[in-house]
Amino acid sequence: MTDFAATKALFHLPDGMIYLDGNSLGPLPLATPARVAQAVQDEWGDMLITGWNKAGWMAQPMALGDRIGRLIGAEAGHVTLGDTLSVKVYQALAAALAMTDRTVILSDSGNFPSDLYIAEGLIRAFGRGLELRVVDPEDVAAHIDGSVAVLMLTQVDYRTGRLHDMAALTAQAQAAGVLTVWDLAHSAGALPVDLAGCGADFAVGCTYKYLNGGPGAPAFIYVAPRHAATADPALQGWLGHDAPFAFEQGYRPGAGVARMRVGTPPVIQMAALDASLAIWDKVDMDALRTTSIRLSQRFIAGVEAACPDLTLASPRDPHARGSQVSFRHPQGYAAMQACIAHGVVGDFRAPDIMRFGFTPLFIDAGDVDAAVAVIARVMGERLWDAPRFMERAAVT
Amino acid sequence: MTDFAATKALFHLPDGMIYLDGNSLGPLPLATPARVAQAVQDEWGDMLITGWNKAGWMAQPMALGDRIGRLIGAEAGHVTLGDTLSVKVYQALAAALAMTDRTVILSDSGNFPSDLYIAEGLIRAFGRGLELRVVDPEDVAAHIDGSVAVLMLTQVDYRTGRLHDMAALTAQAQAAGVLTVWDLAHSAGALPVDLAGCGADFAVGCTYKYLNGGPGAPAFIYVAPRHAATADPALQGWLGHDAPFAFEQGYRPGAGVARMRVGTPPVIQMAALDASLAIWDKVDMDALRTTSIRLSQRFIAGVEAACPDLTLASPRDPHARGSQVSFRHPQGYAAMQACIAHGVVGDFRAPDIMRFGFTPLFIDAGDVDAAVAVIARVMGERLWDAPRFMERAAVT
Repeated sequence: MTDFAATKALFHLPDGMIYLDGNSLGPLPLATPARVAQAVQDEWGDMLITGWNKAGWMAQPMALGDRIGRLIGAEAGHVTLGDTLSVKVYQALAAALAMTDRTVILSDSGNFPSDLYIAEGLIRAFGRGLELRVVDPEDVAAHIDGSVAVLMLTQVDYRTGRLHDMAALTAQAQAAGVLTVWDLAHSAGALPVDLAGCGADFAVGCTYKYLNGGPGAPAFIYVAPRHAATADPALQGWLGHDAPFAFEQGYRPGAGVARMRVGTPPVIQMAALDASLAIWDKVDMDALRTTSIRLSQRFIAGVEAACPDLTLASPRDPHARGSQVSFRHPQGYAAMQACIAHGVVGDFRAPDIMRFGFTPLFIDAGDVDAAVAVIARVMGERLWDAPRFMERAAVT
Repeated sequence: MTDFAATKALFHLPDGMIYLDGNSLGPLPLATPARVAQAVQDEWGDMLITGWNKAGWMAQPMALGDRIGRLIGAEAGHVTLGDTLSVKVYQALAAALAMTDRTVILSDSGNFPSDLYIAEGLIRAFGRGLELRVVDPEDVAAHIDGSVAVLMLTQVDYRTGRLHDMAALTAQAQAAGVLTVWDLAHSAGALPVDLAGCGADFAVGCTYKYLNGGPGAPAFIYVAPRHAATADPALQGWLGHDAPFAFEQGYRPGAGVARMRVGTPPVIQMAALDASLAIWDKVDMDALRTTSIRLSQRFIAGVEAACPDLTLASPRDPHARGSQVSFRHPQGYAAMQACIAHGVVGDFRAPDIMRFGFTPLFIDAGDVDAAVAVIARVMGERLWDAPRFMERAAVT
């Protein structure tokens, strides 16, 4: 059983701030600065080129991948790390498409736009009659049929927190001969995921949200063991080669998911992630989920009691959503800015979504109650009417 | 005029080591640990999500890109940063291929293997009859004709240091309607490059070698102004979108080279690069080149006088090579290990190349003389015969 009071003490949380945005950028673990300094000074500074072996830089994408793998139910040795989530989506989608002659990529309008952009770009490049079919989230199941090559979904909707039933959709896809690419951006570290149990084909995700890897932390990719020896990496770079340092002229893919590595791994970002995973290594994902649900239910009850103007945008059933809660309000952007100014940090997603993330590692029931009190005051007193909250920042 | 004695004092160089491997991984600037700590603690830790604006994270890929642009003769606003070199090769090559109906990608056997691997993978994915034609470096000019879509070359050979004449080859390519993709991995920070003056179409490079950005530092990409409004990024991710935070369902490319951005930028790695570029911002590239040539000529003269068993693998004409010098020896791997054990760090490239990089920012004539003395002793006394130098490390 994870002691979440103890994990809270492992994070740097600015004074006077209740940070309900760990679903966008997780906060800094207290141990991270020293780990990063070690990578910079003791590894890069003193070992120089020998750090690739001595400090384990070269092995780290697979080693860190396995630690993430535990959180998402992957078989050991089948997750690797690197690049950004969009790049990994490209590789997973390209690999899946190389396994089938079908031409339809099925996704939904709740997917993160970048996944759809990547698919569009890939279709234009690959040709062969590929087509992106985007349906409403609730209509996905009805569109899984023999015309579909790949089902590409983000499990948890970045706006509403709506949670797809990965087990059911993957089973349905498999029965129809459809390959699956799951984006776990808002799942990894948010709730238990069972990739192996579901029989997912590919999965990708990022580590700067719930996993606290820091801004620009690398992405991860999972390839099911049954595809590991045949998956085409598409972006076939030297570090995915079977023998990168033989400098052969022709490409030979590395063993299993290691072929999904592309270029030089981001050593300093990996050091930061190493520090945060030291916390995650000890987290019981079922306990995390139970606590997350308790927090989000408490938050919904509190906000609904105090703020009649806010409309719940997330599923009311906690088992049908991830670890975030969203409310709609016509002045959502300005209202969120006012909340932030008063110490409750969530974020805004167009057109009218106020989004709050629940991250049991450092958010507790006291934080939820304090956040509700601030939000109630902001909404009740229309603090968001103040002119300073009305201009739109470049990054929301 | 750059004072290279002064720049040497800005680097952390381990005691007793002469580091002639800055062409593989540049050493740590003394100012970098504090800059990285600032990014981790003051930016990520205290600003959290607001760091994207407040700390300038979002703008950094273009800002750092311009500082690199000065070193490679790019027009301001036409270089951006992110991902790895292999990923950027993929984008540049895909963008170039989207501009032509021709099908041949012309490269040479001196190109870094990853560039060739990436091309192979792209060909398999894109289809349309694309073909990779790899010729000997000295035969490139003879193969530039109307069948060639893209000329994709690494300017400086990673093994021998042989330098392609970028101006002449680009002019010849242009006359034949051939687009150019230049890999500047061993050029950026090694010698003056004049992308704009040459009329290059695309260029890519990395920042962890001569530019001292640290292990895993991001890559850069240049798109000529005449292509900036039309180039297809292929990997079209949300941060290359014209309005990433509007979360539109369809992709609209950003202005110019910004569309080559893909996913979340590596903030911590960028902070390290920011610190090293503060040194590079003041470097006169012509002075650097003059000093580099003086050092490498001194090294060749010294080694050839003292080590009759070593055969020069680099061009003898300094204007025909980059900023490294390579020698061949049948026992090159073990010999290099022995040099390293005696304090002179270069590296080995199969099958028999001992490679030494000359980086005037922190290597001076005294270092060259000291290195020659060590190499002479290693070779003269066959120190590399010792058993401990005979086993092959995983990473060479």
